[in-house]
Amino acid sequence: MKTINLEHKFDLFSEHWHPHIIAELNGQYVKLAKLKGNLVWHSHEKEDELFMVIRGTLHMKFRDGEQSAGPGEVLVVPRGVEHYPYTKDNEEVWVMLFEPASTRHTGDVVDERTVNDQEWI
Amino acid sequence: MKTINLEHKFDLFSEHWHPHIIAELNGQYVKLAKLKGNLVWHSHEKEDELFMVIRGTLHMKFRDGEQSAGPGEVLVVPRGVEHYPYTKDNEEVWVMLFEPASTRHTGDVVDERTVNDQEWI
Repeated sequence: MKTINLEHKFDLFSEHWHPHIIAELNGQYVKLAKLKGNLVWHSHEKEDELFMVIRGTLHMKFRDGEQSAGPGEVLVVPRGVEHYPYTKDNEEVWVMLFEPASTRHTGDVVDERTVNDQEWI
Repeated sequence: MKTINLEHKFDLFSEHWHPHIIAELNGQYVKLAKLKGNLVWHSHEKEDELFMVIRGTLHMKFRDGEQSAGPGEVLVVPRGVEHYPYTKDNEEVWVMLFEPASTRHTGDVVDERTVNDQEWI
């Protein structure tokens, strides 16, 4: 029951596309990630995923369109929906994620950057 | 899959201590609330609750201490833990909540401000 300061938590890691866990509630994790460049097209079969942008602009391609989100904006990707997160102009984007404890960030796709051992910070 | 702008959503209501739903994922709701003054001492028997402060400073009394959280800060109240949210100096505080769809904001306590029919905005 200690207040969690997101900025302080973001200072604890520098890797891109590597979510770190800051809280757990009701079987869901709250994670922070720094994004730069692009991830891979993927989906999560059974898990909805929320992105809240803290810094920069997140771009998200879907098979039928595209959305972008800046600080104070939230994007929910429903289960089964293929998505492709990326950032423009080499910008580093900070996001907070809400998702089930079981979610892997690359979904059913295993990429060289797939992280299996998620770390608490 | 549309980007949700929190500021725009906050503009849609003015009541205090009346959470409004902006998204649902994995059986959890994301809600926005404007807080001013104090709520009641309460707990949620089976539900953990997350508060993320968007504007102002949220104060939270626990039976054994107190925490405060400002913009960019997060506070998780585990199930069963009595808490008493309040704001100081008549400040209006904006928070984003993440909690199971079944959670009532006053927990097991029914207060005159208990809201049963939660509204989407």
